[in-house]
Amino acid sequence: METASFDNVLRLNGDDICDGTDDLAREEPLEIRVRGRAISVTMRTPGHDAELATGFLVSEGIISSQTDVLRIEPCGRNEDGNVLNVLLAPEVHIDFDRLTRHVFASSSCGLCGKATIESVRSNFPAIETDLSIDPSILLSLPRKMRDAQAAFDRSGGLHAAAIFDAFGRLIVLREDVGRHNAVDKVIGYALLNGLFPLDRHILLVSGRTSFEILQKALAGRLPIVAAVSAPSSLAVEFARDSGQTLVGFLREGRMNIYAHPTRIDLAVAPAS
Amino acid sequence: METASFDNVLRLNGDDICDGTDDLAREEPLEIRVRGRAISVTMRTPGHDAELATGFLVSEGIISSQTDVLRIEPCGRNEDGNVLNVLLAPEVHIDFDRLTRHVFASSSCGLCGKATIESVRSNFPAIETDLSIDPSILLSLPRKMRDAQAAFDRSGGLHAAAIFDAFGRLIVLREDVGRHNAVDKVIGYALLNGLFPLDRHILLVSGRTSFEILQKALAGRLPIVAAVSAPSSLAVEFARDSGQTLVGFLREGRMNIYAHPTRIDLAVAPAS
Repeated sequence: METASFDNVLRLNGDDICDGTDDLAREEPLEIRVRGRAISVTMRTPGHDAELATGFLVSEGIISSQTDVLRIEPCGRNEDGNVLNVLLAPEVHIDFDRLTRHVFASSSCGLCGKATIESVRSNFPAIETDLSIDPSILLSLPRKMRDAQAAFDRSGGLHAAAIFDAFGRLIVLREDVGRHNAVDKVIGYALLNGLFPLDRHILLVSGRTSFEILQKALAGRLPIVAAVSAPSSLAVEFARDSGQTLVGFLREGRMNIYAHPTRIDLAVAPAS
Repeated sequence: METASFDNVLRLNGDDICDGTDDLAREEPLEIRVRGRAISVTMRTPGHDAELATGFLVSEGIISSQTDVLRIEPCGRNEDGNVLNVLLAPEVHIDFDRLTRHVFASSSCGLCGKATIESVRSNFPAIETDLSIDPSILLSLPRKMRDAQAAFDRSGGLHAAAIFDAFGRLIVLREDVGRHNAVDKVIGYALLNGLFPLDRHILLVSGRTSFEILQKALAGRLPIVAAVSAPSSLAVEFARDSGQTLVGFLREGRMNIYAHPTRIDLAVAPAS
């Protein structure tokens, strides 16, 4: 269950006060362990935790293929299922020092957006796929995402991420209190189900796009990232530098294209 | 400037395509250094960085009074202003090991929401102030926040946090690409300006409330946390356990009260 029910919620509306129950998005900590060591604790909505852990390891550059993951299972001593052991293939190299440092370590006071982009780009090359899609396909995606969102309208508190193929068919949708977790889950799903690399696919997120979302999409080799709301400045700079097509404000028949528009076939008139 | 202007943004609306500029929320990394050591790197919207660093140190339990902070200044070797040195009073104790571990370290597989709440509560006792406010004051806050938001409508990509006094007067408002950063900034502002403890004040956030927001509010001793959108399950559990009044969906003359409603004077009929 992605939501939890709470009693004793007071609802105030004008002069009217009533006492009832409310369904809210669940938030619980998850610890990811690799080779016996905790490498991450994140606050997430329980469910699809193996996908979350897998997507996290992809975006950290540790794994990139289905065969890298041998098994993922809850730690038996944690009754809440909030500790996950990821068993990786022996040949997967892990730099624990780098993981336990903060992800964007600064180098001699050279901390800026450009240095941050470069530190990610050193792990993940730019995307060069020649995919081209009809804009009307993009315009159809938010509605498909909303239709597939089971918990969103009930709790009002979940971010959604979805992967679509180039024909606009929904491959997977996940929701989470954390935007980055929802993206990790869909990318993790794709790796665990043999869909890597995702170089003919589209990532759609329900909210805004930040640097972190673009970074995760690059790790999954997704050439097109679209969002219902606005990107940040660094998301645009990152996408322009990384060969990613970035679309924002994708709603109500409109979109803004911030980076690499050539993957969207603008010679095709979208359905009005 | 909280926004940055981007050229070459394609706008697609039905059959119409035009090329223009777009103002987007700025996102840049910030490294916080204390006693020569980097303790945090966060992606934030530049501006009010000293407040951000101060609020972060408050919520980590490292500082709690204005005299704890001697000086905050950008590292001279970083031209972008993205590295900040915080000079703390010599008597301030810092457990660097705890800081460099993840914030919610698990103890022998006991990771769950309850353990997470307890680990924070061991640093910050519950709030017991007898503040009582008229619900119509709460209902008036979102409009005041919107009016004070300069950048929000332009970029569509910033979260806002604001502190109000018990009469509903705006004390400070800050915006950021990161919801937690906006909260750090307003709490940091309050400490740097001698307003601590905030036990007669209200925190309002523009979006959703998570565990992390409630934790930061508790560190600042804010008795009332209100949000325009939904709380997460752990936010509600945390607020109920910590003596914090938690309000959600505060908009259009309505609100839901999830925890400790006694600070809201329900005998007073709100203005219809």
